[in-house]
Amino acid sequence: MSAPLSGITILDLTHVLAGPYASMIFADLGARVIKVERPGIGDDTRAFPPFKDGQSAYFATINHGKESIALDLKQQDDRAIFDQLLEHADVVLENYRPGVMEKLGYGWEDLHKRLPSLIYGAVSGFGHTGPEALKPAYDMVVQARGGVMSITGERDREPVRVGASIGDIVAGMFLAQGVTAALLQRRDTGLGQKVDIAMLDSQLALLEHAVALTSVTGEAPRPSGARHPSITPFETFHAEDGLFVIAAGNDALFSRLCDALQLPLAADERFATNPARCDNARLLKRLIEAVTLGAPKAHWIEVLTEAGIPTGPIQNVAEVMKDPQILSRNMVVDVLDKAGKPQFTAAGNPIKLSGMTDSTTRGPSPALDGDRAEILAWLAEAES
Amino acid sequence: MSAPLSGITILDLTHVLAGPYASMIFADLGARVIKVERPGIGDDTRAFPPFKDGQSAYFATINHGKESIALDLKQQDDRAIFDQLLEHADVVLENYRPGVMEKLGYGWEDLHKRLPSLIYGAVSGFGHTGPEALKPAYDMVVQARGGVMSITGERDREPVRVGASIGDIVAGMFLAQGVTAALLQRRDTGLGQKVDIAMLDSQLALLEHAVALTSVTGEAPRPSGARHPSITPFETFHAEDGLFVIAAGNDALFSRLCDALQLPLAADERFATNPARCDNARLLKRLIEAVTLGAPKAHWIEVLTEAGIPTGPIQNVAEVMKDPQILSRNMVVDVLDKAGKPQFTAAGNPIKLSGMTDSTTRGPSPALDGDRAEILAWLAEAES
Repeated sequence: MSAPLSGITILDLTHVLAGPYASMIFADLGARVIKVERPGIGDDTRAFPPFKDGQSAYFATINHGKESIALDLKQQDDRAIFDQLLEHADVVLENYRPGVMEKLGYGWEDLHKRLPSLIYGAVSGFGHTGPEALKPAYDMVVQARGGVMSITGERDREPVRVGASIGDIVAGMFLAQGVTAALLQRRDTGLGQKVDIAMLDSQLALLEHAVALTSVTGEAPRPSGARHPSITPFETFHAEDGLFVIAAGNDALFSRLCDALQLPLAADERFATNPARCDNARLLKRLIEAVTLGAPKAHWIEVLTEAGIPTGPIQNVAEVMKDPQILSRNMVVDVLDKAGKPQFTAAGNPIKLSGMTDSTTRGPSPALDGDRAEILAWLAEAES
Repeated sequence: MSAPLSGITILDLTHVLAGPYASMIFADLGARVIKVERPGIGDDTRAFPPFKDGQSAYFATINHGKESIALDLKQQDDRAIFDQLLEHADVVLENYRPGVMEKLGYGWEDLHKRLPSLIYGAVSGFGHTGPEALKPAYDMVVQARGGVMSITGERDREPVRVGASIGDIVAGMFLAQGVTAALLQRRDTGLGQKVDIAMLDSQLALLEHAVALTSVTGEAPRPSGARHPSITPFETFHAEDGLFVIAAGNDALFSRLCDALQLPLAADERFATNPARCDNARLLKRLIEAVTLGAPKAHWIEVLTEAGIPTGPIQNVAEVMKDPQILSRNMVVDVLDKAGKPQFTAAGNPIKLSGMTDSTTRGPSPALDGDRAEILAWLAEAES
C-alpha cells in the first residue's frame, strides 16, 4: 500500500504555524504540498531562530517535504500561474485574515464557482464568522482568551502559557481533520467545501473536564499546579533526587500503590475513595513523599512500573529526544538536505499506519521559490 | 450536502478520554458510533464527577450522540453479537493495553484476515511497538515524560501540568486523523489498515519550537511562565485591574504598539529588533506596564485592537462559555435528553464545514446498554 494521501495535491498559502502544521500532517501522510510564498520574504518563520548554516531550524521542522514557489498574487503573471495551479489542486489552504482572499479574487465563493471540486481550508484566529472575525490573533491571545491559561499554573499564582504552541497546533490539527473528511465526502459528491477553523474555537474544544465542571457547578476551575483537578493521587512527587509522577487513576491502582510503597492506607477511610483522597490530597502527598524521599526516582519508577501503576519521569526535551521508546517509534527524524545528508532534526509522524512505511527521514525543507522550475515544467506538461 | 462521515459506522471499544474523544469527532462529523461497554460498569467516566441528576456531566460532554450496548467479550452470546456488529462496521476503535484484543481473538491480524476492509484504530500510552509498549499510562504520565511539562510553568519553579488533558486529547485527534485518512484510502484499495497512536508520541509532535531549539543548541528549553520563549513582547501585562495579553509578533506590530501606548521606543536600539527585545524583555515589560497600569484592561484591549495589535483578556472557563464570539460560532452546545430537553452543556464542534449544518444541540449521551434493543433489531434486519 502507498501513503493514504498520495495523489492529493495541496496548494498551501499558509504561513507561520497553524496552517503549515496542517500541511505538514498532509505531507507526512503522502500528499504533495506546494507552498505558495510571498516573493522576497516568504513564510515569516524563515526568519525565526534558531538557525543552522543560515537556515531556520524552526522553519525546517514544520515545512520539510514541501515544495516552494514564490508568487505575488497581485501581479498578473503570477496570478496566471496560480490559476493553473488551482486547476490541478485538490485543496487550497490559507490562514490570512478573513477577507484577504476575497480581495485577491480567490475567496471561497469565487473559487467554488470556478472549481466546484476544490476543497478550501481556512484557519484564522477567530474564524470567518461572528462579531470578531476580522481581529488578528496569535497563539498567546487564544490560549489566554480561550480558557486554557486560566487552568494552567500554580494555585493562587499568575496563570502561565502552555509551553507548546497549542493555540496554533490544535487548530492546525482540526483543519487537517476537516479537510480529510471533506476529501472523503468528495468521493461521493464530487464537490468541494469550505473548512473554517478558528484558533479560539479549538481551545474550547480542549476543555472537556473544565466545561463539564463549569456548566454543572457554575464555578470556573482554577489552576491546580501539577495536580489533576479531580483525581488523586495524580501528580508530581519528590524522590530523593527530584520530581517524578504517579497517576493512580482508580481505587484498584491506589490499593496497588499502597502495597508497593508499603503504606497501610488502602483501608483508611480518609483515602478509601477518590473523593476522599481529593479532600485529603495534601495529607496523602506528604504520606507518600515520606516514603518516596527515601530513594531515587529511578527506583520508584521501576518499583511502581513493576506493580502496574502508571508512573514516569519528568523529562526535558533533550531527554525526550533520546528516550528509547520515542526512538523506537521513529518519532525523531532527520530532515535531509537536497544532497540527501541530514541537515535538521524534527518530530516524526505520530500517525502510524500498517499500510505506510514509517520513514526515519524527511525530504528537504524548501528554499524560497526553490521548486519554481520543476513546478512550471509540471504545469506545462499537464496542460499539453 | 450531508455530514461528511454519514454512512460510516464506528464500533467503539474505547473508554475514558483519548479514544472517546476520537469517536466524538466522528459523531460530530456524522458517523454512527456504537459504544461497546463492559456490562455493569461501562465506561469508567460514567463514575467521574461532576454529576447532574445522578449522571456524569464529564461522560456526557464526550459521549453525546453515541449509542451504547453492553457486551462481555468473554461470553459466547455476546461475542456472537459483537461478531455480527463487526460485519457491519467500517472502523473498530480500542484503547486497551496492547495484547488485550489479541487475547480476546479480536486483534488486528485476526480481524484483518476475517474482514479485510475493516479499519482498526488503536490508541495507547506508548503505542503497540517498542520496548515499553505494554506499560500503562495516563495523561499525566505522558505530559511529564513527553516534555510538555518541562516547558510549562514559571521560570525556576516546579513544572506544572497543562490544565487541559492534552495527553489524551491530542492523541485522540491524531487517531481520528489517521482513521479518516485510512477511510479515504480504502475507497481506492478496498482494504482497511491498522492505525496505531501513542499518547507519548503525540506529545513530542506538539514540541515544534522546543525540538528545533534543542536539536540546534543541544540545550533543552526551560519553562518561561506566561512569556513566549523567543518572541517579545508576547506575554501577559498588568493593567489597572489585572492581567491581559499582548502578542506583538513582529517589528511592524511592535512599532504600532509603541504608537498606541505613546511609548517612544520603536527606534530605540535596545528594542529595534526581536532578538534585541528578547534580550531586554524584562526592561521592556516594565516600560510597557508603566503605561498599562494607568487604565483598566478593557481600555487597553480596545485601544490596541483598534491599532490592529493582537491582544485580549485572560478568561476563565465561565467567561469563555459566555464569550459572544464563541457563542456566535456554536461552540457551546446543549446535550439533549431522550425527551429532547437540554440536560448537559458541552463544547461544540470546532470543524465548521460549508456542507454541514452546525447544530447547536447534540443527541443524548447514552445510558449504559441503553440502545441494545434497537441495535439488535438493526442487526436482525441487516442479516435478513
